[in-house]
Amino acid sequence: MDLISFRDLDKGTVEKIFGLAEDIDRQLERKKVDKLEGIMATLFFEPSTRTKLSFQSSAERLGLQVVDFLADRSSLKKGESFTDTIKTVDGYCDVMAMRHPAEGAARLAAEVAEAPVLNGGDGANQHPTQTLLDLYTIRKLKGKIAGLNIHLVGDLKHARTMHSLVYGLGMFGAKVTMVAPKGLELEEHMVHEAEKRFNFKMESRDSIDLKDADVLYVCRVQEERFIDKYEAAKVKKEFTISADYIRKGKKDLIIMHPLPKIDEIPPEVDAMPQAKYFEQARNGIPVRMACIKMLLEG
Amino acid sequence: MDLISFRDLDKGTVEKIFGLAEDIDRQLERKKVDKLEGIMATLFFEPSTRTKLSFQSSAERLGLQVVDFLADRSSLKKGESFTDTIKTVDGYCDVMAMRHPAEGAARLAAEVAEAPVLNGGDGANQHPTQTLLDLYTIRKLKGKIAGLNIHLVGDLKHARTMHSLVYGLGMFGAKVTMVAPKGLELEEHMVHEAEKRFNFKMESRDSIDLKDADVLYVCRVQEERFIDKYEAAKVKKEFTISADYIRKGKKDLIIMHPLPKIDEIPPEVDAMPQAKYFEQARNGIPVRMACIKMLLEG
Amino acid sequence: MDLISFRDLDKGTVEKIFGLAEDIDRQLERKKVDKLEGIMATLFFEPSTRTKLSFQSSAERLGLQVVDFLADRSSLKKGESFTDTIKTVDGYCDVMAMRHPAEGAARLAAEVAEAPVLNGGDGANQHPTQTLLDLYTIRKLKGKIAGLNIHLVGDLKHARTMHSLVYGLGMFGAKVTMVAPKGLELEEHMVHEAEKRFNFKMESRDSIDLKDADVLYVCRVQEERFIDKYEAAKVKKEFTISADYIRKGKKDLIIMHPLPKIDEIPPEVDAMPQAKYFEQARNGIPVRMACIKMLLEG
Repeated sequence: MDLISFRDLDKGTVEKIFGLAEDIDRQLERKKVDKLEGIMATLFFEPSTRTKLSFQSSAERLGLQVVDFLADRSSLKKGESFTDTIKTVDGYCDVMAMRHPAEGAARLAAEVAEAPVLNGGDGANQHPTQTLLDLYTIRKLKGKIAGLNIHLVGDLKHARTMHSLVYGLGMFGAKVTMVAPKGLELEEHMVHEAEKRFNFKMESRDSIDLKDADVLYVCRVQEERFIDKYEAAKVKKEFTISADYIRKGKKDLIIMHPLPKIDEIPPEVDAMPQAKYFEQARNGIPVRMACIKMLLEG
Repeated sequence: MDLISFRDLDKGTVEKIFGLAEDIDRQLERKKVDKLEGIMATLFFEPSTRTKLSFQSSAERLGLQVVDFLADRSSLKKGESFTDTIKTVDGYCDVMAMRHPAEGAARLAAEVAEAPVLNGGDGANQHPTQTLLDLYTIRKLKGKIAGLNIHLVGDLKHARTMHSLVYGLGMFGAKVTMVAPKGLELEEHMVHEAEKRFNFKMESRDSIDLKDADVLYVCRVQEERFIDKYEAAKVKKEFTISADYIRKGKKDLIIMHPLPKIDEIPPEVDAMPQAKYFEQARNGIPVRMACIKMLLEG
Repeated sequence: MDLISFRDLDKGTVEKIFGLAEDIDRQLERKKVDKLEGIMATLFFEPSTRTKLSFQSSAERLGLQVVDFLADRSSLKKGESFTDTIKTVDGYCDVMAMRHPAEGAARLAAEVAEAPVLNGGDGANQHPTQTLLDLYTIRKLKGKIAGLNIHLVGDLKHARTMHSLVYGLGMFGAKVTMVAPKGLELEEHMVHEAEKRFNFKMESRDSIDLKDADVLYVCRVQEERFIDKYEAAKVKKEFTISADYIRKGKKDLIIMHPLPKIDEIPPEVDAMPQAKYFEQARNGIPVRMACIKMLLEG
């Protein structure tokens, strides 16, 4: 079994992963984790320090050892094919975690490798463990996902994980409001796919109104996406989540962000009890441990 | 004890390594490997992702931990001498695996380090674990080496491991046919050294004829080696191992390659039962584990 | 608890670390080390192969696993704040070892991280484990520090660890002689701080005279520090520690150096029994193990 796309997973499997992650969370707290044996190879053909560290740390918490394929110093330079690289590394490990700039790379790797493959991001496409840890964080902090008002705010078009996230939120029955600047909305076919699959309807807005939000999921708006610099500055300002905005929201509002954040959330927000993005990042550990465990044992 | 050159080993030692590797192969299959304790340092002064990963994975399968000396970011830039670097790293590990562009670097390291040193390639010179895994692969797949018809095909002059391989094939009594383009033959003094030492005679050809081959060991022919581009293209084509060539050979022919391969073996060959190069790469694990074990325990 | 500056430590704590290091030294000799569990993250925002390797090796000898944050390929490039990086990595490890070019970076990290932080050097400022291993080496080789004649020789102004070392030598009651070229003396306020704090007086000279030295601690003199090339060459020559100099000293003189050395100590000195700098580097292992253990258990 591999973990390539969130959309390969049915609700039962997602809930199985959450159950495993909860068990592991308890084990981590007691500092007594059930250990596995074996080697994880990390292959990051595109730099992503935090995702790679999170996978490596998760593997090590499970008792695995790690080897890191440093893609930029590799045989790739000598012209070796991607599948040859995968087949060779396959002989050196029991499970692979991979990031690649090309869509479909992880699925191709999964086809040629005997070892299970975990997709840590392929192009603008899939990043299933991010979606899993996002959903897990909401569930853990709110006790449920169904019926919650989830506001997705920022550049939803270019955010790598938004596509899977709306799909996952649909799967678990959340009420989704998408708040994006004009031209940076989530692509229509992605909206329709999720709505049709889970028979629900998402709301769209072009300005922030947090009044009824239970969860605020923030994505960065990048100036480079605008032709007009004046427009860019105006929109960036509107989509900066100030402490004032947050104080006007529900008291138990939680703020999430896939990180790294730059200035879309000012530093003073970090100290507010609503800010949960570092906790969200920490949840990557039990969730990725659960995924690795499922793949190695399944 | 160190492992610097295949030619430092007598047949008894090579057979001891093969015996250890067979044991380890069985242990790996049962997923119950006898563990050692300690730290391996990898020092690759020249990039070689696959050799480094193979050493690291082998060490970890044995229960060792790994530290990696990233040579390009090192004190070397500050002008430190090679022997000072080795003496310092020596204090941080129990065994070293090293690759260096300069001939003799590994032997020099072995002289100044207390920890055993494994040579993972020094210049165009020695790469003993590659030769050991090549011979181990033939022995494992064919049940023996003695008397087999082994064809070495391609640019034998520049292939790093060819020198040791003919020596090792001589040691085990194989019949060797060297098939190289004109000007890219194995250097005469290397041929004579092996022939004299093991009292046998190798055949030389300049075109491929697989009819009686039991093993086909392929090396890349690089265009850069030719002055005449037309000649280069012609030779490259002749030395590409097509599926058609292979179908004309013995049914139980095995095809080996030190990898990475580029286009000297077309991708369609990978699926043929004769293609054993990925299995050959995998054999690097038990063979390197055997070498590490021997050095640490010997 | 964190380990940011040697000056945060009182004598009792330093002696506790030395006691732990002695225990660990004995355990390392018997190859039976009491193991801990957990993950160390190394964050080197400035390359330092030997310090990083020493921390990683120390952690692994204690049974910890290691993840390495490769700073140059990191989210830093995307503009993430230093504290965000630390908060995220904090979620992936149990202890951090860090080097950063900016003074105060390690202390800032310690403030935002829950995991204990070990400062492996921040700018020209602090590098407490180096000072600890320097003192530990003197104590181990000489049986004591108090009353010994310690000569500090070379560019004391720019040597990162000199400031802490004179402070530590004062704490343990050594007699300190500072021998620096004109203009490269240790800064006065550092001299005064140590002298006042520990109520002693250090001597200053501008040329080497080893007659009564028990310990010679050598720092590199870099030509770039001089405007006049002729002056630079003359001073460099005077401050090169030749075998002749050493033969004129006490028989049980020990020579130390923080490494890497270039030409301030000629290679022929390495073989003299007085040369202890590689042993000094090796002492980094038990000392850093002791520090990690104290932070994780304290």
